[in-house]
Amino acid sequence: MRSVLRALDLLALFDDTHRSRTVRELIDESGLAKSTVVRLVATLEQRGLLWSRGDGRLTAGAGLLRWAALAQDAWRLPPEAQACLREVSERSGGESSRIYVQQGTFRVCVAQHEGTQPLRHVVRVGEEMPLWAGASGHVLLTGADGRQLRRVAAAAGRGEAFEEELAARVRRAAERGWAVSHGEREDGVSAIAAPVTDEDGRVVAAVGLGGPTSRFTDERVERFAPLLADAGRALSRLRFIGGR
Amino acid sequence: MRSVLRALDLLALFDDTHRSRTVRELIDESGLAKSTVVRLVATLEQRGLLWSRGDGRLTAGAGLLRWAALAQDAWRLPPEAQACLREVSERSGGESSRIYVQQGTFRVCVAQHEGTQPLRHVVRVGEEMPLWAGASGHVLLTGADGRQLRRVAAAAGRGEAFEEELAARVRRAAERGWAVSHGEREDGVSAIAAPVTDEDGRVVAAVGLGGPTSRFTDERVERFAPLLADAGRALSRLRFIGGR
Repeated sequence: MRSVLRALDLLALFDDTHRSRTVRELIDESGLAKSTVVRLVATLEQRGLLWSRGDGRLTAGAGLLRWAALAQDAWRLPPEAQACLREVSERSGGESSRIYVQQGTFRVCVAQHEGTQPLRHVVRVGEEMPLWAGASGHVLLTGADGRQLRRVAAAAGRGEAFEEELAARVRRAAERGWAVSHGEREDGVSAIAAPVTDEDGRVVAAVGLGGPTSRFTDERVERFAPLLADAGRALSRLRFIGGR
Repeated sequence: MRSVLRALDLLALFDDTHRSRTVRELIDESGLAKSTVVRLVATLEQRGLLWSRGDGRLTAGAGLLRWAALAQDAWRLPPEAQACLREVSERSGGESSRIYVQQGTFRVCVAQHEGTQPLRHVVRVGEEMPLWAGASGHVLLTGADGRQLRRVAAAAGRGEAFEEELAARVRRAAERGWAVSHGEREDGVSAIAAPVTDEDGRVVAAVGLGGPTSRFTDERVERFAPLLADAGRALSRLRFIGGR
């Protein structure tokens, strides 16, 4: 599977700030041998995930359009869920609300209702973030077993003591039904999150609010927590996570 | 690279009519060993290209949302190009117009303006079609060398005589600056296409019209051909194929 991971990691070098890349850049960024990169690029081009432009730069391939449609279909919120995200955002006074799901040792934002405050916190839908950091991560981990927790804690690269710290945070999130974090992933950014569950009660997503730490005082966190827990329960009833 | 191709081919088993799949289905459809499929699925899940739903079915992963955004950004038509597609469609009397690019031995529709006729021909943006069949394919192949032509002809699986037939069709498309096809890929469907070129005059895309063969009479083809050739020149001047 090593070549699969390498191929996907090459693709991951394309992002909003690097919409096109040269083969040279891919070699430098990946640290892979030129021959490996050239072969991986040829394979990805053949299947339409990369495209060679006339100017010699590579960009996202047209074959991705097909998967784009599938992913957007699977992850499109039903109108009731959109209304729920908007309501949480409005009742919080204009913070951004969003839904995260777990993906390996990461979490990914699958939907967002942007806040209305001039200073607001915005993430990109589809963006990967570490699972060990932030309120949504702790909520998503509440169903994890010891082995998974160890794997996620190891990904943080903060030594063995961090594993116990993370486990304690996750236990607390499970007990309260929500989690809060201040500046864990991004300085000056706070978040509060609650679980979205499937019919068997398993946590399949987290619904969260994010904004500047200056607005996430203890008093407001106390007010936001039941909002999020309610939203989590309402979203759970809709059973839309991962599509039909 | 074999495992990369296998991984991408597993992903390709997800489409509009199979938005979710079980591991069992993937094993049956791919013909791969269970252990191989399980490992490939785990790798694709880890990187967010697949997602395990609560009901045990796999669906498009949230990580694809990021690439969806990149691909749509790279392949989004500038307003002038959209207007050009719309105009071709309107001036043809309501056939569907679209743009194709080459992808390995396939062509992929990257944009479409749907016709207005009750009986209209519609393709999916992002859909792969064989490069050896259809007017757009012949136009896209006009820059191909002998080796590429042989590879594409071989993909048709129609024996060696087909290679010469295809080469003749491609030569004719290059000479006239447009191509026409009747029922090559789909019974009863005709198409006419012209090249879109980059600053060096290389063919980077084909702009085409498609509709029922009953409406693509010789007389109308004579009228459509200059429309398409004009559209191809107008689109070439915009230099948008593959993004900026």
